[in-house]
Amino acid sequence: MTADRPGEEALIARYFAPLAGPGAEGLRDDAASLTPSPGHDLVVTVDAVVAGIHYFPGDPPASIARKVLGVNLSDLAAKGANPRGFLLTLALPGDWTEDWLANFVEGLREASAAFGCPLLGGDTVRSGGPMLLSVTAFGEVPMGAMVRRQGAQPGDRLYVTGTIGDAALGLVLQGAGAPSLDPESRAVLIDRYRHPQPRLALAPALRRHARAAMDVSDGLAGDLAKMLGGRITARVRIADVPLSAAARQALRIDPSLLATALTGGDDYEVLCAVPPEGSDAFLAEAREAGVAIAEIGTVEAGEGPALFLRQDGNVQPFERASFSHF
Amino acid sequence: MTADRPGEEALIARYFAPLAGPGAEGLRDDAASLTPSPGHDLVVTVDAVVAGIHYFPGDPPASIARKVLGVNLSDLAAKGANPRGFLLTLALPGDWTEDWLANFVEGLREASAAFGCPLLGGDTVRSGGPMLLSVTAFGEVPMGAMVRRQGAQPGDRLYVTGTIGDAALGLVLQGAGAPSLDPESRAVLIDRYRHPQPRLALAPALRRHARAAMDVSDGLAGDLAKMLGGRITARVRIADVPLSAAARQALRIDPSLLATALTGGDDYEVLCAVPPEGSDAFLAEAREAGVAIAEIGTVEAGEGPALFLRQDGNVQPFERASFSHF
Repeated sequence: MTADRPGEEALIARYFAPLAGPGAEGLRDDAASLTPSPGHDLVVTVDAVVAGIHYFPGDPPASIARKVLGVNLSDLAAKGANPRGFLLTLALPGDWTEDWLANFVEGLREASAAFGCPLLGGDTVRSGGPMLLSVTAFGEVPMGAMVRRQGAQPGDRLYVTGTIGDAALGLVLQGAGAPSLDPESRAVLIDRYRHPQPRLALAPALRRHARAAMDVSDGLAGDLAKMLGGRITARVRIADVPLSAAARQALRIDPSLLATALTGGDDYEVLCAVPPEGSDAFLAEAREAGVAIAEIGTVEAGEGPALFLRQDGNVQPFERASFSHF
Repeated sequence: MTADRPGEEALIARYFAPLAGPGAEGLRDDAASLTPSPGHDLVVTVDAVVAGIHYFPGDPPASIARKVLGVNLSDLAAKGANPRGFLLTLALPGDWTEDWLANFVEGLREASAAFGCPLLGGDTVRSGGPMLLSVTAFGEVPMGAMVRRQGAQPGDRLYVTGTIGDAALGLVLQGAGAPSLDPESRAVLIDRYRHPQPRLALAPALRRHARAAMDVSDGLAGDLAKMLGGRITARVRIADVPLSAAARQALRIDPSLLATALTGGDDYEVLCAVPPEGSDAFLAEAREAGVAIAEIGTVEAGEGPALFLRQDGNVQPFERASFSHF
């Protein structure tokens, strides 16, 4: 490293220690202690993002911070967990600047405060490669109440939060040959790509009512297939999949983008299966929590892939069901 | 990726799922649940290693697996924690091979079994850069019993486990102009560089007797300075710092390597401060646990850096007190 940039100890003291939560020992130790509330389990998850693969290297540093924390908290939300804290592994490329880092940490501070999830520790390394950030997020649920990905049963209703496809369309809009949207819609979709909104407010309702849940990160069609696990199948009414006004505008300009919206990923919305007898209460609690919910279909017996039905009654084919960053 | 290499889902199912422990949901979920034993806190730590910085890209894949798990479990051991499980973030370079991965996972399986620390989850990403591995390790301690890095008091005795300097010398031996040792000593030192031995058996004795502890990862001199935190100081008798026969041979050939041994890092031994009244019991319990312990000096009042005293009574100067991978 060049002499005008601080070393790891100085970085921690200057930038990260102010974000440290209870149990983090002010980031002056090699470990943090963490105890779930009495009668609770911890829920742990890890997700990494890499420059040029999961985000654009030129994205605002604060957005990148928000993204890596958000994608992990989205996993916690879908498991019905309330956030408790996180660890950050930061691999800096050779050309990192202190200005970038200061803006990144400011975004991390804001996201950490907004989501009620303090920093508990981390590791900062130098890497000859692209910037890489890996977050381990901790949440908690009443003992035994983690909502599993599998466990849906025939007859369960399928719900998603928010709107689907915005981020995937926001990604397309940043590439070559993208449809030309009005500036406001374009900004909305790119914002959705950069800034996941983990649906933490829905966690209690999921714990009480969902038989299975996961966050939609690799595309609705592919993630639904993972939830069904080949044991059961489902029918989804495409007309009921919630789309934002900006997404609808994009699809009017280029109807072929429907497949992108349904398989493109980066939604960070919750997909869940709720038994019919719990549906009314689930919807009421979601409304109370301020989280938009749409019923998109039904779980059915059978082993084939889920059918995505168009309004003409035909099945929508997909070239591939999900996007893989891998 | 090329068509003949499996995708992320296939990698997880083929290689990582067989290592999954209780609560890991067979790695088929986005999160794992983890509950400390009744009356216990969790202890969490994260450390990453990068090819070409923390290990040689040509090191055996099984050794790299052992190293990334070992350096994290070394942190847990020093905090007095018993391991409960770990998460792995694996960033693969463009030229990864399935053969490398199979050998890596085999090493991970062996280390995970040897250390009693099952895999709970992870994330695998592709990166244009060098291989990077980040492990989040979970341990547990009786509530409130995590051994802090700071907290040593004047009069406390300083102890280290095992032998110091082997790994740093093992690193030197792999560079240009290295002293020519007999093949057996050379193999011992390189093995110590590649294969950290987390002193997990010492955790209970540390919890009962140590006022402060940390693992020696960045060099004894620098890590001792971190433990003292500028509040207190210490005297270390260099002749009492335990050296392996192989390290002593290297120092006979090149006495200037003493500084390397004391500041070079990668020891993954425990440094701890124990009040005099607890010392006999601490040593007896360490012996019972089969962990070699050496008393190297004493904590003293005062604010200067710790003094490393040579046998002639003079202070050993260091150009730098610790090695930084950063």
